[in-house]
Amino acid sequence: MYELGVVYRNIKRAEREVADGLAKLGASTVHEAMGRVGLMKPYMRPIYAGAQVSGTAVTVLLQPGDNWMLHVVAEQIQPGDIVVAAVTTDNTDGFFGDLLATSFQARGARALVIDAGVRDVKTLTEMGFPVWSRAISSKGTVKATLGSVNIPVVCAGSLVHPGDVIVADDDGVVCVPAAMAKKTLEAATAREANEGEKRAKLASGVLGLDMYKMREPLEKAGLRYID
Amino acid sequence: MYELGVVYRNIKRAEREVADGLAKLGASTVHEAMGRVGLMKPYMRPIYAGAQVSGTAVTVLLQPGDNWMLHVVAEQIQPGDIVVAAVTTDNTDGFFGDLLATSFQARGARALVIDAGVRDVKTLTEMGFPVWSRAISSKGTVKATLGSVNIPVVCAGSLVHPGDVIVADDDGVVCVPAAMAKKTLEAATAREANEGEKRAKLASGVLGLDMYKMREPLEKAGLRYID
Amino acid sequence: MYELGVVYRNIKRAEREVADGLAKLGASTVHEAMGRVGLMKPYMRPIYAGAQVSGTAVTVLLQPGDNWMLHVVAEQIQPGDIVVAAVTTDNTDGFFGDLLATSFQARGARALVIDAGVRDVKTLTEMGFPVWSRAISSKGTVKATLGSVNIPVVCAGSLVHPGDVIVADDDGVVCVPAAMAKKTLEAATAREANEGEKRAKLASGVLGLDMYKMREPLEKAGLRYID
Amino acid sequence: MYELGVVYRNIKRAEREVADGLAKLGASTVHEAMGRVGLMKPYMRPIYAGAQVSGTAVTVLLQPGDNWMLHVVAEQIQPGDIVVAAVTTDNTDGFFGDLLATSFQARGARALVIDAGVRDVKTLTEMGFPVWSRAISSKGTVKATLGSVNIPVVCAGSLVHPGDVIVADDDGVVCVPAAMAKKTLEAATAREANEGEKRAKLASGVLGLDMYKMREPLEKAGLRYID
Amino acid sequence: MYELGVVYRNIKRAEREVADGLAKLGASTVHEAMGRVGLMKPYMRPIYAGAQVSGTAVTVLLQPGDNWMLHVVAEQIQPGDIVVAAVTTDNTDGFFGDLLATSFQARGARALVIDAGVRDVKTLTEMGFPVWSRAISSKGTVKATLGSVNIPVVCAGSLVHPGDVIVADDDGVVCVPAAMAKKTLEAATAREANEGEKRAKLASGVLGLDMYKMREPLEKAGLRYID
Amino acid sequence: MYELGVVYRNIKRAEREVADGLAKLGASTVHEAMGRVGLMKPYMRPIYAGAQVSGTAVTVLLQPGDNWMLHVVAEQIQPGDIVVAAVTTDNTDGFFGDLLATSFQARGARALVIDAGVRDVKTLTEMGFPVWSRAISSKGTVKATLGSVNIPVVCAGSLVHPGDVIVADDDGVVCVPAAMAKKTLEAATAREANEGEKRAKLASGVLGLDMYKMREPLEKAGLRYID
Repeated sequence: MYELGVVYRNIKRAEREVADGLAKLGASTVHEAMGRVGLMKPYMRPIYAGAQVSGTAVTVLLQPGDNWMLHVVAEQIQPGDIVVAAVTTDNTDGFFGDLLATSFQARGARALVIDAGVRDVKTLTEMGFPVWSRAISSKGTVKATLGSVNIPVVCAGSLVHPGDVIVADDDGVVCVPAAMAKKTLEAATAREANEGEKRAKLASGVLGLDMYKMREPLEKAGLRYID
Repeated sequence: MYELGVVYRNIKRAEREVADGLAKLGASTVHEAMGRVGLMKPYMRPIYAGAQVSGTAVTVLLQPGDNWMLHVVAEQIQPGDIVVAAVTTDNTDGFFGDLLATSFQARGARALVIDAGVRDVKTLTEMGFPVWSRAISSKGTVKATLGSVNIPVVCAGSLVHPGDVIVADDDGVVCVPAAMAKKTLEAATAREANEGEKRAKLASGVLGLDMYKMREPLEKAGLRYID
Repeated sequence: MYELGVVYRNIKRAEREVADGLAKLGASTVHEAMGRVGLMKPYMRPIYAGAQVSGTAVTVLLQPGDNWMLHVVAEQIQPGDIVVAAVTTDNTDGFFGDLLATSFQARGARALVIDAGVRDVKTLTEMGFPVWSRAISSKGTVKATLGSVNIPVVCAGSLVHPGDVIVADDDGVVCVPAAMAKKTLEAATAREANEGEKRAKLASGVLGLDMYKMREPLEKAGLRYID
Repeated sequence: MYELGVVYRNIKRAEREVADGLAKLGASTVHEAMGRVGLMKPYMRPIYAGAQVSGTAVTVLLQPGDNWMLHVVAEQIQPGDIVVAAVTTDNTDGFFGDLLATSFQARGARALVIDAGVRDVKTLTEMGFPVWSRAISSKGTVKATLGSVNIPVVCAGSLVHPGDVIVADDDGVVCVPAAMAKKTLEAATAREANEGEKRAKLASGVLGLDMYKMREPLEKAGLRYID
Repeated sequence: MYELGVVYRNIKRAEREVADGLAKLGASTVHEAMGRVGLMKPYMRPIYAGAQVSGTAVTVLLQPGDNWMLHVVAEQIQPGDIVVAAVTTDNTDGFFGDLLATSFQARGARALVIDAGVRDVKTLTEMGFPVWSRAISSKGTVKATLGSVNIPVVCAGSLVHPGDVIVADDDGVVCVPAAMAKKTLEAATAREANEGEKRAKLASGVLGLDMYKMREPLEKAGLRYID
Repeated sequence: MYELGVVYRNIKRAEREVADGLAKLGASTVHEAMGRVGLMKPYMRPIYAGAQVSGTAVTVLLQPGDNWMLHVVAEQIQPGDIVVAAVTTDNTDGFFGDLLATSFQARGARALVIDAGVRDVKTLTEMGFPVWSRAISSKGTVKATLGSVNIPVVCAGSLVHPGDVIVADDDGVVCVPAAMAKKTLEAATAREANEGEKRAKLASGVLGLDMYKMREPLEKAGLRYID
């Protein structure tokens, strides 16, 4: 349930070093390290390939076809933040374009994650300002109805509190609660450490069946081989 | 973000009288009374028309294609509860059928709200056990992976805490946070009180344009009439 | 392209007798009689089964999440009209409920066709006011932005001019341009006249293959029977 | 891969008694009895609630927007058959209406399962001819391009051979391969036999947790209860 | 409603200079300059990124799975045209490939906008022939049923008359009615002129809240800041 | 209908030379050469543009949210194979990432075609291991429930037998039954041979109307030109 018409100015952001450190691990590893939770729905796609970011969430709740609150949230951005925008109903209008991106970038925002549409994607790509969205659309919006800033929001099926860490790349968008960020960074780093060795083994032809010792549990589960 | 593998046994339910009182007001009036928030996505549909219920939420988080936790949540049901089931990923399998419904009904549950599929809908209809779901499907499920019971869940885009009030009818499903339930009941009752008078006026041919005094703001907004 | 902020008060409605006469033929027969065109997309569904209506279109263009113009269009309704509502972008909010329906019905409207959501469907059903819509949703709307009334609109993929005839039943919604309404009524009536005879033949076991003399063209097209 | 332009006249149907016996068990029980396979996708919905049928499949492959082959398949129907119609591409047009239904019914068909649209649903409902389809649409079709009859088809994601048994009800549509029909009938009947006893226990308040002895495996999987 | 089986040879195209001039402004700016109307639905996507075109519309209405009329429309193309293709029902088949593109390009067409599928996208990309479509699909089509050329069509929810101006880029596709093209070019150019200055201000850290003087209206609307 | 819990080790693959030869013809030409059948649904998209492959199918049936069988199928891969993965229900989880890709590549697999989600797409792109999938998602999977390897599967609406030839490129994915592969290669090669000549004619301005002699059949079908 959402409180409307409010802007929370003082939010507790996850520790900067932790928030920054999660970027290089990527959305999939972080999501695994949290126990396979925290992921936004896969309809959230980047407007261009290759961006990989993490940062602290500044949240905004929008009304359908109305981008007024994106101007309000701009003022609350601090360097290293990622803006997370939810809408009170499904909507694909183009809430965000190159002018707002210029403003967000000037304030130090690293990206926008928006459960709605975005436009001016060619310019945004040239600016190197990454956006994950549910749609691309020229459809303009009005400025008539209040939402809120820095309240907890549900964005693409995932609950995001202001100050949580957002990790986004070509695979999707993950939200790491601030209280779990440090532990998640450690767990994700540990996972990553193992991957090089595993990859080398698999590349040499060792099978996952043997490397992960799956043959016995598969047999117990009843798997039969037929020649 | 979800905590996995836990069952919270002691939850604080919204006041019974309030939770029960919201049913007759219906989802649309309650949603308006809260300031047009709290609504689940409209793909949530009742398996039969005409049911109108409210109750306190007992929540469960499921894994895709796995209904193990529905048996776990059954034990936590108290009379007057509505079970709210989320899944960690989009899934339309038939997690729930007539046997589980018999058990839920025996425990005093009033309904199930599930962001997934349901089956045995003919029998459920005969039993008078209402379900709001995203799909109807015969697809069976396994019992292999843990979720959780009575943690906060995001169900069909709406955040539900255990103990919140759920209101559901042919229009959809609304979640009222426990802390707001009483105020919402009052606001919704007040709204409802006015409706009879408004309806009588409109039925007599009075226009909303006049009843709501819209002609002046419309003119200010620039509306032009052309003969 | 739409003209915004205007209300056309004088529209030329299709002849009453013709508009009324199309109801009993139904959407499918009328659509065939026009040469298989004029149909709205099949996501437009009735809120209850069994309604079958026709009437003259009064059109309204709405903005996403904003039902202001539905109050404006109410004044333009004349007995025998069907209101056809389009939105400038895809939106499933509940723009219309029992109060507006009371007003529409008082003005003589026979139905609403809306490329968006509707609510209070239980009450609408009890009132016998049929609606064809893309969604059912409790989601409320605001009154902040102008659209237009009685301009040509694209509703669910079909172009509708004010005064055109709308035919709607369980199969869907068809728009018959006013200029073609009389000819379409004749053609549809003629089609219908043949159906009884055809049905009797088919019920007696005669095959469509023979009744429609399809065996030769099928053979020419290369159909082979294999025993 | 499909062979086009052919009609197989002699197909081997599953044993009549077995095919008929599966109806009363319903789609969900049959699907479980086969090991949770054989189900069509859940977008396949009945045009009216309450029908529950089984029968032997006569298959037809259609081209988009073209119902020519439905006339060809009519001749191949024998009493107790269910026609299963696939299309070479996704299409929601109304391929089937009351005239074809009259013909199918006269030939002894029990139902139509079609991965496309259907029309005249009010008349079909009055006739008591059930159809499971992906859409309802007035959109008419032409008769210009060949498909095939009684070849194996993929319908709504499920592979159907001519002569297989189709079981359909409010929960969905299942295909039982002819060779497995007898065994499936036995397994489904056995499942059903247990259900009464289970239902009685659950209705008396016994928990599935105890009835299915789930407490130990849940504990082993790591489930924790928190007071 | 569509007239079938006709080809209009003489259409009145928007002024060449105006039609050409809109390309560099792009879909989003043009859509805003028209008052936020005229936009096709956002499922229309370019087959490759970076193309930005405008031109005069030559329209064609297709039947599902049938690309016959694309050969008919080719003859009506004049240099500077963009072909706009609608289908009488939703269909994702691959109506258009490299051979038709070669022919269209030889006639002087600048692009294709098609509310259906397209194929040979790798070759089309190499040819530099841009297409905006709802799908990419290898699915072939037949040549059996008539549609029409140069009638008004509804393409992806937008009404397009022959001779209108089409503007398309990475953000989507807009249709500008011929009669409004000149005024729209002026309005869009004026919008664009302001953008540089606005961008510089925002880049320097000025907030949209101040630049657009939003603080007062936000306060009036009831926005509260909480520390 | 699917047999669960089995791995067929000895499958008969289509002739290597034929399987390899189909790659350069591409999905659209091969699909046409087979008579416009065999195509997977167009929601199957490549994770990066430009890959064009063919190979022999090794099939795997997965359970929702469970990638255990992908480790089992790895052992059955031979150089020149393409793994085709179906799921028993619609699911978009990320079943496959860079570790499995390393293993598949080490075994000689050329690609993966999966009717579900995939992750680590940036790394897969760098590795040059192409995947056609219905989704990209970080969502992890478990290893708990058996499926099968090298049984016939329905993948994205297309029936695939182990040993069939898969052809995939930017246009989509086609399955060529092993028994038809040679004939299809010949037919596709013949089609291709004609294309250069046709393209040259069309590029010179010759119309398809004349090249394909369509004017007479169009006239017979009733096409009218209006000046």
